[in-house]
Amino acid sequence: MSQQPFDFARMGRRSFLRAAAFAAATPILAEADLAHAAQAGAVPAGLAVHGQGPDVPPPGAVLINANENPLGPSKAALEAIAKAAPLGGRYDRIGETEMLAMTFAEQHGLKKGYVEIYAGSGEALHYTVLAFTSPTRSFVTADPSYEAGMYATLTSGAKIVKVPLTSTYAHDVKALVAADPNAGVIYICNPNNPTGTLTSKADIVWALDNKPKGAILLVDEAYIHLSDAEDVMDMVAADKDLIVLRTFSKIYGMAGIRAGVAAGRPDLLAKLKAFGQNPMPITSSAAARASLLDSDLIPARKKLIGDTRRDTIAWLKANNYKVIGDSQSNCLMIDTGLPGKAVMAAMKARNVYIGRTWPIWPNAVRISVGTPEDMAAFKTAFKAVMENKAMAELKGARHAGVDLAAIEPRLHWS
Amino acid sequence: MSQQPFDFARMGRRSFLRAAAFAAATPILAEADLAHAAQAGAVPAGLAVHGQGPDVPPPGAVLINANENPLGPSKAALEAIAKAAPLGGRYDRIGETEMLAMTFAEQHGLKKGYVEIYAGSGEALHYTVLAFTSPTRSFVTADPSYEAGMYATLTSGAKIVKVPLTSTYAHDVKALVAADPNAGVIYICNPNNPTGTLTSKADIVWALDNKPKGAILLVDEAYIHLSDAEDVMDMVAADKDLIVLRTFSKIYGMAGIRAGVAAGRPDLLAKLKAFGQNPMPITSSAAARASLLDSDLIPARKKLIGDTRRDTIAWLKANNYKVIGDSQSNCLMIDTGLPGKAVMAAMKARNVYIGRTWPIWPNAVRISVGTPEDMAAFKTAFKAVMENKAMAELKGARHAGVDLAAIEPRLHWS
Repeated sequence: MSQQPFDFARMGRRSFLRAAAFAAATPILAEADLAHAAQAGAVPAGLAVHGQGPDVPPPGAVLINANENPLGPSKAALEAIAKAAPLGGRYDRIGETEMLAMTFAEQHGLKKGYVEIYAGSGEALHYTVLAFTSPTRSFVTADPSYEAGMYATLTSGAKIVKVPLTSTYAHDVKALVAADPNAGVIYICNPNNPTGTLTSKADIVWALDNKPKGAILLVDEAYIHLSDAEDVMDMVAADKDLIVLRTFSKIYGMAGIRAGVAAGRPDLLAKLKAFGQNPMPITSSAAARASLLDSDLIPARKKLIGDTRRDTIAWLKANNYKVIGDSQSNCLMIDTGLPGKAVMAAMKARNVYIGRTWPIWPNAVRISVGTPEDMAAFKTAFKAVMENKAMAELKGARHAGVDLAAIEPRLHWS
Repeated sequence: MSQQPFDFARMGRRSFLRAAAFAAATPILAEADLAHAAQAGAVPAGLAVHGQGPDVPPPGAVLINANENPLGPSKAALEAIAKAAPLGGRYDRIGETEMLAMTFAEQHGLKKGYVEIYAGSGEALHYTVLAFTSPTRSFVTADPSYEAGMYATLTSGAKIVKVPLTSTYAHDVKALVAADPNAGVIYICNPNNPTGTLTSKADIVWALDNKPKGAILLVDEAYIHLSDAEDVMDMVAADKDLIVLRTFSKIYGMAGIRAGVAAGRPDLLAKLKAFGQNPMPITSSAAARASLLDSDLIPARKKLIGDTRRDTIAWLKANNYKVIGDSQSNCLMIDTGLPGKAVMAAMKARNVYIGRTWPIWPNAVRISVGTPEDMAAFKTAFKAVMENKAMAELKGARHAGVDLAAIEPRLHWS
């Protein structure tokens, strides 16, 4: 496993923080800007057409680069938004957010104080890293995995310890637990982003029982409803040292509406709150609760997205493209054998926006599962790109000299 | 001026943080819970009916305790929400939040990088205190003024320095600037919450020019459109050491929808972002931009709310009640001559929820300006309470032994 700090243009974290505080935009800050753009849902500097309005994908673009749900909010969620919006002159006087927490708690066998509502799970993820990591308490993560926690260490000053996935692309819980006796947070994303691969509940419970004292497990279940994975909410109910994240951005189709959950012992959740817990939009809380109460939503969407994923994987394999692992999520990784960033750029030129690469696998790109129509467009464009002669010449190159800013897609908080 | 730390049940801040991290609920934590309840828009523990669903005010309650706008979101804002919501399956791919920032910047003579969008100004206020105060950099505030910044020092560990308002209830800028050579943030709320009184632009500019080196001014203009006060956005454009906050929670009537602005030099705003900047709900950004583009909104609502305020003040004075200062906002303070908390409890018993007290003025209560119907109900209830014999017996008492948890209303982020 590597113990290097997360590489923001090879600049140390403390130097970064000093620079960020005092300097104007520099190449180093451009990397940080990318992270912040991710957090803001804004456009990375390199993509913006300055002074000409916001940069948005062109009409007809196929957006399979941010693990979004093209189905959008459910009918019940949209109705709840329409009903709540006219009451928006007031803060939440109708108990929407509290009712959301109570409904979630009830559905998951938790006491009410074990559930806190945030405007997406990203806030809770960020605050968990701020609360439980520090220059002396590291952030331990699988590699590749979702990067938001690593970005948060820029603020906490924590060391990042990356642990490669196993040969089946599960989290290597033995290595994660052994990675650093002074771990503050051990991050487990299940199913994992970007691979969509699972880690068994037995392994997560083993990690809980064997982690360094003082560390907590941060189990990110953003994608769990898309898979057959067992959740670990019973470990929360059992007062273990973990925080479990859920989001309404994925199967519920509310990435742009914003709602998420942090579940954990009240004393753990209290530490997050010190960093802020903004009042929820009543529209978002109402939509989230309506989504929880829609008992058809999860099975119907799981089947629909799963069918599209299975079709896409079958097509990729039939065409001898290499899919990494066995995704049970709304994303998957393809090892292209080419510099991934060049593939992304070539796909973008065909108006198909695919997901990013991870440093550990520079030849792999992440594909989100869109609509069947999205995936048909993806297949056509991907085949054309992979059969392109100029692309083929890049084979074996790890760095194609492609301008990162020109092709790096947005990163997104869950 | 007093240099005491903010009084959370007289417990030191460090002890608090230790206790909060490890202890179960205690009277001290109940105070912190109150603050966090404020941030979450949740119900303070003392008000909750445990296990019986969320505690919400009873039907017909008159809610003039949180400086809300009973007019709610404008028609244009509601239409924008309805239009954006179905696109909520994706993060902001349509540039809503960036367009909001650009529109705000253009309307205020700022370059785009000088404007950041948050889900209300409270997030930006909280992060400003986290970024610019510390155990060695204090938080300097008028007294009484909006308390959210003081709560944020619980996380930053900063000392709080309180400076009483002047005899005309303006900010005493000379005393604020002289309060602490190691000030990190000097907070100026204009119009002030809770008094609704103004501080002149000349005074704010003087404070900017004479503040301790290394300090920034945090100018909270949450209520400015309700008043005739001049704003200080030109100081932002001039690259001065200040951050100006605006919210859509007040005149725009979007407290429950959540949108706000932090304006400042990009290097100052970058420091806030390290603590988090969550992607905006596209519904909120769309509603905020529609509100900015509705040129009739501010003059119409300013007149409506102003008329109701003027009527309320005239009635109070005609009945020999003592109004503190000359409010130009949607709130005002009344010196009741009785323990304010007892007055609040008695008003609540009549289903009229009025605003809270501040420690410096224990006999004063804050009244938000509701609809004319709200204020008619207020007048009837207030007269009855003030003429009640049992209440009159409390005259002169500073502490009536009234249970704080039973009557303290929610505090709210702007």
